[in-house]
Amino acid sequence: MTATEGLKIAVIGGGSSYTPELVEGFINHYDALPVRELWLVDIDAGARKLNIVGNLAKRMVERSGLPITVHLTTDRRQAISGADFVSTQIRVGQLDARARDEAIPPKYGVIGQETTGPGGMLKALRTIPVILDICRDIEELAPNAWLLNFTNPAGMVTEAVLRYSKVKTAGLCNAPIGLIKQVSGKYGVPPEQVYAEFVGLNHLHWVSRVEVGGEDKLEELLADTSGYSAANVPAREWNPVFLRSLRALPSYYLKYFYMTDAMLEEQLESLGCGENRAEVVKRVEEQLFTLYSDPELKEKPKQLEQRGGAFYSEAAVNLMVSLHNGRNDIQTLNVANRGIIDFLPDDASIEVNCVVTKTGPLPLPITTFPPMAKGLIHAVKTYERLAIDAAVTGDRDLALQALVHHPLVPSVQTAMNLLEEMLEANKALLPKFFAPGEDAPAVRN
Amino acid sequence: MTATEGLKIAVIGGGSSYTPELVEGFINHYDALPVRELWLVDIDAGARKLNIVGNLAKRMVERSGLPITVHLTTDRRQAISGADFVSTQIRVGQLDARARDEAIPPKYGVIGQETTGPGGMLKALRTIPVILDICRDIEELAPNAWLLNFTNPAGMVTEAVLRYSKVKTAGLCNAPIGLIKQVSGKYGVPPEQVYAEFVGLNHLHWVSRVEVGGEDKLEELLADTSGYSAANVPAREWNPVFLRSLRALPSYYLKYFYMTDAMLEEQLESLGCGENRAEVVKRVEEQLFTLYSDPELKEKPKQLEQRGGAFYSEAAVNLMVSLHNGRNDIQTLNVANRGIIDFLPDDASIEVNCVVTKTGPLPLPITTFPPMAKGLIHAVKTYERLAIDAAVTGDRDLALQALVHHPLVPSVQTAMNLLEEMLEANKALLPKFFAPGEDAPAVRN
Amino acid sequence: MTATEGLKIAVIGGGSSYTPELVEGFINHYDALPVRELWLVDIDAGARKLNIVGNLAKRMVERSGLPITVHLTTDRRQAISGADFVSTQIRVGQLDARARDEAIPPKYGVIGQETTGPGGMLKALRTIPVILDICRDIEELAPNAWLLNFTNPAGMVTEAVLRYSKVKTAGLCNAPIGLIKQVSGKYGVPPEQVYAEFVGLNHLHWVSRVEVGGEDKLEELLADTSGYSAANVPAREWNPVFLRSLRALPSYYLKYFYMTDAMLEEQLESLGCGENRAEVVKRVEEQLFTLYSDPELKEKPKQLEQRGGAFYSEAAVNLMVSLHNGRNDIQTLNVANRGIIDFLPDDASIEVNCVVTKTGPLPLPITTFPPMAKGLIHAVKTYERLAIDAAVTGDRDLALQALVHHPLVPSVQTAMNLLEEMLEANKALLPKFFAPGEDAPAVRN
Amino acid sequence: MTATEGLKIAVIGGGSSYTPELVEGFINHYDALPVRELWLVDIDAGARKLNIVGNLAKRMVERSGLPITVHLTTDRRQAISGADFVSTQIRVGQLDARARDEAIPPKYGVIGQETTGPGGMLKALRTIPVILDICRDIEELAPNAWLLNFTNPAGMVTEAVLRYSKVKTAGLCNAPIGLIKQVSGKYGVPPEQVYAEFVGLNHLHWVSRVEVGGEDKLEELLADTSGYSAANVPAREWNPVFLRSLRALPSYYLKYFYMTDAMLEEQLESLGCGENRAEVVKRVEEQLFTLYSDPELKEKPKQLEQRGGAFYSEAAVNLMVSLHNGRNDIQTLNVANRGIIDFLPDDASIEVNCVVTKTGPLPLPITTFPPMAKGLIHAVKTYERLAIDAAVTGDRDLALQALVHHPLVPSVQTAMNLLEEMLEANKALLPKFFAPGEDAPAVRN
Repeated sequence: MTATEGLKIAVIGGGSSYTPELVEGFINHYDALPVRELWLVDIDAGARKLNIVGNLAKRMVERSGLPITVHLTTDRRQAISGADFVSTQIRVGQLDARARDEAIPPKYGVIGQETTGPGGMLKALRTIPVILDICRDIEELAPNAWLLNFTNPAGMVTEAVLRYSKVKTAGLCNAPIGLIKQVSGKYGVPPEQVYAEFVGLNHLHWVSRVEVGGEDKLEELLADTSGYSAANVPAREWNPVFLRSLRALPSYYLKYFYMTDAMLEEQLESLGCGENRAEVVKRVEEQLFTLYSDPELKEKPKQLEQRGGAFYSEAAVNLMVSLHNGRNDIQTLNVANRGIIDFLPDDASIEVNCVVTKTGPLPLPITTFPPMAKGLIHAVKTYERLAIDAAVTGDRDLALQALVHHPLVPSVQTAMNLLEEMLEANKALLPKFFAPGEDAPAVRN
Repeated sequence: MTATEGLKIAVIGGGSSYTPELVEGFINHYDALPVRELWLVDIDAGARKLNIVGNLAKRMVERSGLPITVHLTTDRRQAISGADFVSTQIRVGQLDARARDEAIPPKYGVIGQETTGPGGMLKALRTIPVILDICRDIEELAPNAWLLNFTNPAGMVTEAVLRYSKVKTAGLCNAPIGLIKQVSGKYGVPPEQVYAEFVGLNHLHWVSRVEVGGEDKLEELLADTSGYSAANVPAREWNPVFLRSLRALPSYYLKYFYMTDAMLEEQLESLGCGENRAEVVKRVEEQLFTLYSDPELKEKPKQLEQRGGAFYSEAAVNLMVSLHNGRNDIQTLNVANRGIIDFLPDDASIEVNCVVTKTGPLPLPITTFPPMAKGLIHAVKTYERLAIDAAVTGDRDLALQALVHHPLVPSVQTAMNLLEEMLEANKALLPKFFAPGEDAPAVRN
Repeated sequence: MTATEGLKIAVIGGGSSYTPELVEGFINHYDALPVRELWLVDIDAGARKLNIVGNLAKRMVERSGLPITVHLTTDRRQAISGADFVSTQIRVGQLDARARDEAIPPKYGVIGQETTGPGGMLKALRTIPVILDICRDIEELAPNAWLLNFTNPAGMVTEAVLRYSKVKTAGLCNAPIGLIKQVSGKYGVPPEQVYAEFVGLNHLHWVSRVEVGGEDKLEELLADTSGYSAANVPAREWNPVFLRSLRALPSYYLKYFYMTDAMLEEQLESLGCGENRAEVVKRVEEQLFTLYSDPELKEKPKQLEQRGGAFYSEAAVNLMVSLHNGRNDIQTLNVANRGIIDFLPDDASIEVNCVVTKTGPLPLPITTFPPMAKGLIHAVKTYERLAIDAAVTGDRDLALQALVHHPLVPSVQTAMNLLEEMLEANKALLPKFFAPGEDAPAVRN
Repeated sequence: MTATEGLKIAVIGGGSSYTPELVEGFINHYDALPVRELWLVDIDAGARKLNIVGNLAKRMVERSGLPITVHLTTDRRQAISGADFVSTQIRVGQLDARARDEAIPPKYGVIGQETTGPGGMLKALRTIPVILDICRDIEELAPNAWLLNFTNPAGMVTEAVLRYSKVKTAGLCNAPIGLIKQVSGKYGVPPEQVYAEFVGLNHLHWVSRVEVGGEDKLEELLADTSGYSAANVPAREWNPVFLRSLRALPSYYLKYFYMTDAMLEEQLESLGCGENRAEVVKRVEEQLFTLYSDPELKEKPKQLEQRGGAFYSEAAVNLMVSLHNGRNDIQTLNVANRGIIDFLPDDASIEVNCVVTKTGPLPLPITTFPPMAKGLIHAVKTYERLAIDAAVTGDRDLALQALVHHPLVPSVQTAMNLLEEMLEANKALLPKFFAPGEDAPAVRN
């Protein structure tokens, strides 16, 4: 793009209920990020939602008075062509697929969660081939574009792009920015005065340093973990004795590993009541779309914040602003490891503080690595790499090896049973597994 | 030593029922390993067994007609002074401690095993301080001696020596030599024609290459795993589909990780019957000592082979012969990693093929690393390092972190409960934890 | 310090002609860096200069109206006690020692330069023990202080502090900021819009990326290298064919390696005329001190800029401001490698872009490493480490090995002759070599 | 091959004067290495020599009575097809090219040597494309064959094969075996009792450990270096003070780096007398071929030993025997680094002790790395990689960068002048540079 013309942005999965947040972000940061064209793309099955949310977006832009044009389309290639930024927030198989990811594993005594464990693997198997198709389009039609990936499992999806395409990419999660906001609120300081060091992978990080105004507050935070949780993870309290000797704040997703038995018990109870997280989200989504449909609504409704993805759009717009302007500020992103975690391959995705330069994010060295975290990080990364390769090739053996080596799966036999049922349940969404194409790339080790 | 004088060997834990094997080895290899003095050492509580087994040793030597003198003593320093080789085969707390290691964890739904899981950790906590005391003696009285460590958990004990002493050491296990023997038997070739590559840690290895007479036999062995088990691990069959896609033969101890549910179920059944492995071993030991006491017995009795430690003495004597003569042959040992497994610290112990030179074993590069194994190796090594540091310092926090991060422990809460009961049950054997000395060295990360 | 009280700063070598620049910097940045006490320290032999420059400093501060107190002292410990920042800009042996560093090597056909080659080594041998003495004081009297090291050879001095003290430190050079300023001037943009990636060591770096306003300008700069030189390096033009295929801008100090013959010839000519760089500097200095003595002078005189150390104080104040406020901006510093250059030890000093956080500079990964540079970087670092160890221990053998392995020294015999003469010429300044103390620390490899 | 049939061996450059040594080796080791077919291949221009040496080979075999058939051919593909071992000992451009490699650099004040410095680079540029052509044939016609490379510069040629082909290979040099023999002679023990650790690259190694019968003899050898030289390197004595503090025996090729001035002086003197090493070798060769032509000669003549390549055939036959039989003995070879020298890439060739297993040589970890050697090793490897890439692509820029960064080349200008003249002088032998093919592979970094 040239500065006089403004930027073109393509949002894949534009019919998502999160989109109004993103639109609000573009409006608020127009000076630093002059968006000229905003393309919201979705698949045919999502056309209804795309229309509702797209029309709200148009009303929001109109109200702002800014010269942004909003395009709604199901023609992905047209949207991507010449884009400066492409963001993805897709859900292959919709919330029904998520419901299965959450419901099947507990039948075998295994955590059922949409990004962690067998559920996360199936989501990766469904999603990665679609994302790589998008990458093929970007390589052809917008080779200089940055792909901002919000699609979960964000770490694995980002690594698939890093290893199997030439597209420039970074993966984003709202958890890091959420922690910063929480600490900032607790101490009554602006977020810029909070520095937190993140160590690990997406949904598997430890925070090993927290400074507020330059002062170390880690110990204080470890002593008081009330409220250190999030809407989409059922509450279980962290044991303070454990935290103190861990000397790091674990991600709330680490409860699935550190409190496996209690978390599973809760899932089984919920499922017994005929309810799971996917169902709840479905209801919330429906309510949101009803709101969005109101032609008088011309701004992001408050209720969106309960949706669980708070700060997503803030994270996205922050990243675009810094890439566009070379702000060299520090953001926590999912990027290629490149030696930062010395025991992982250079092309493994990690979640790490980065300086966002004009030519891309540079990961910062980790200054305080909790030694306890190393094994679990490596164990989950081992699973992730096998699962990514399985997604790319449709190789059942790799999928089995991935599942067997996931720390939450107790045995080969359980893995086999789970895999059988979950692949079958996702049959329509897994063309690589059920009608293997001929162009599966060779797995790179 | 000088060649004309012969070697001095000290066996700590000389009253062990395994000792006659070792003595037989010294007799059979006298030409390559001219032992002049054999010192069998034990603690006061083991004096009875030391006498029985020591007198058998004397009768065996006498019958051989070789100029070896056998000394029985409870004075460890005298035995070590000026020794060329020191071997350890001790069991702090005897079989009663082992019985507790096996019985307590299953109460919490966790594998109870003497070297793997919480049982292995308690064994390490009991044993490492004693071994390091022995090292202090060696540093002072026999600084050029090699310490051959058979004491379990052999990998952790060896690493403690590597990191917390100046003593030259290697750890040994009979599993690698056992696999070689088994393959050699299956194909009817001498063991020298079998080449197997071991990848991983003690009791946590994968065999990634097997060649017989230079021909790759791995696939064949993966297809037929009958009999690929051992006396001291209850039989569970490997799933051939899993093995084929793993492309490596897992150690039989890996059944605790790959078949956790079934292995635990079996342990619970055995304990329900009032029986565990420790009890069985106790009975076998008593029978052996009865045999040994027979003044007419002048050779190793056949029954010793059922004891579960077959080939231990062969491994030990092989290593001594090669170190003494610089044979440069290949043996599978527990030694410092030194870059061989690139994601582990240089001073971590690993189980790996080594060339045994006159100045010590040199680990060989691993040519075929099963990618699936990486995470589990790192997870267990993370636990091991924390547990070693806990053993050295008596720090309960480190012990808790070690246990929490062991892949077989399902939650922080379980770890806390287990640790509480197991430390209490071992109180008398854990002076560092219950009456902390003042000379605990700082933990090195 | 506490915010209400302001900062204490100690400048070791405060009698340097550069000091007025530093004072100007403190005055101009008072808001961000509230200096309360400025201690200028020098040795007895420098008392005259200290008085002249110190009184100028007092007049400058008085004119500014700021509540900064300036202290002049020869009591180093009093100056350091409780300091927030300590900066060093010392020259052990004064300009006479420099004259010898420059004059002796050319007699043997070797480059004579104050930071590069044998001259740099002798400077390191003289300087490192003094700096480590200062560190002992800081460890005792101001353990939280940052040591900002401007003393050349800055890379080696910084590494000595990193390896042989506990003091927090960073080394600075004006070359990186100088390049930024030059590019900023050439393109008429503010320096913040210039991004340059530095790869290598102090006085041995390559600039592998230059972006102006986010656009790659490297090729353009490689094509036009006019003026890409500096006052204290005699001009020799870079060959454009060479530069184009190097794909990086070499530091002007690299002319000593890439144009050894021409640079040496020029030195021999200058020395033939009875002149060398040290003599020139001596004259300039005398003129400056005459100016400084004028009681009417109350600001930094323009002439100081010709001295060759332009931007030193800007670099220093920038670093202090960022450390004090946690600005997280990018500065090029000499810090511990910590894995950034993967073939050098973690504790080697490198010159690299860093994000300056409140708790210290974090080195950024190098994105474009010219493969040609690797060998020379490693060769010079090998020399540096040996020379540092020689400086610390006073070991002549290490000094010989350092010199032999410097890429500019053609043979063992030349190294021996050179070392003999240079050690002798510096006898009075090398107590470790000529009267070895008993407390020489063991060399760490 | 099958054991009953015997092996097929192809010798590329079979008309070399060294061939009778090789034939003698096959005859003497027939039991361990049952050669059935020996194919001697040469180019048309070498047909005369091939006939002379080939007929001598036939007479030698006939005299031995062994069932080996000797084939003489200029059809390389026929010779390679189905071979078990292929060895290369070629000299592209014959001794005339060598004479130029030795004569041109001294005109510019640079060492002129056939494997070290600019001469070595030109030899690499001429040779590597030819060797890679041979590799294409092996990949197609004998994919399981081992390529034993004796062709100099052996390290660079081997690395080219490692990086640009799929052929299994190892590079050999007679220097390591020569050192072993020399030490074995000095101490009157069989070579098997000598253990020497080699660190570095081909023609750039340091021997950091020497044990005779398990006893450390390094210090003794460093103190007495008389005779530590070789026929094809002019004698210059090592300085004992330097050696003692180096704590390693340098390769005699390191004299070009450690005594550059003296070595160059000697070369200039020799060239002044109208003589160089290439001329001497030419004369010796002619004398040998006159001897070989004698139809009564049926064994290797004694005079061959003066030729300078002593032990080449012993090294070759040793390696073939160990690969064929899986002897697991230790040999010093040029193989892929694979982490052994931690600062070099995995695919760099290094000269290192290896255990020769049935499936190939495994490099042994280096136990004693002289820190002084690191920089020079890396500097030369940097040059080597650039030169290899230049050879593969015919890229003049890469060739210039390689030459500039060779430690023996004093400046960019000298490199440019040298390169110009040397490329021109080798024009007919450098098709990649003067008529670039279209299939130059991309350079891999």
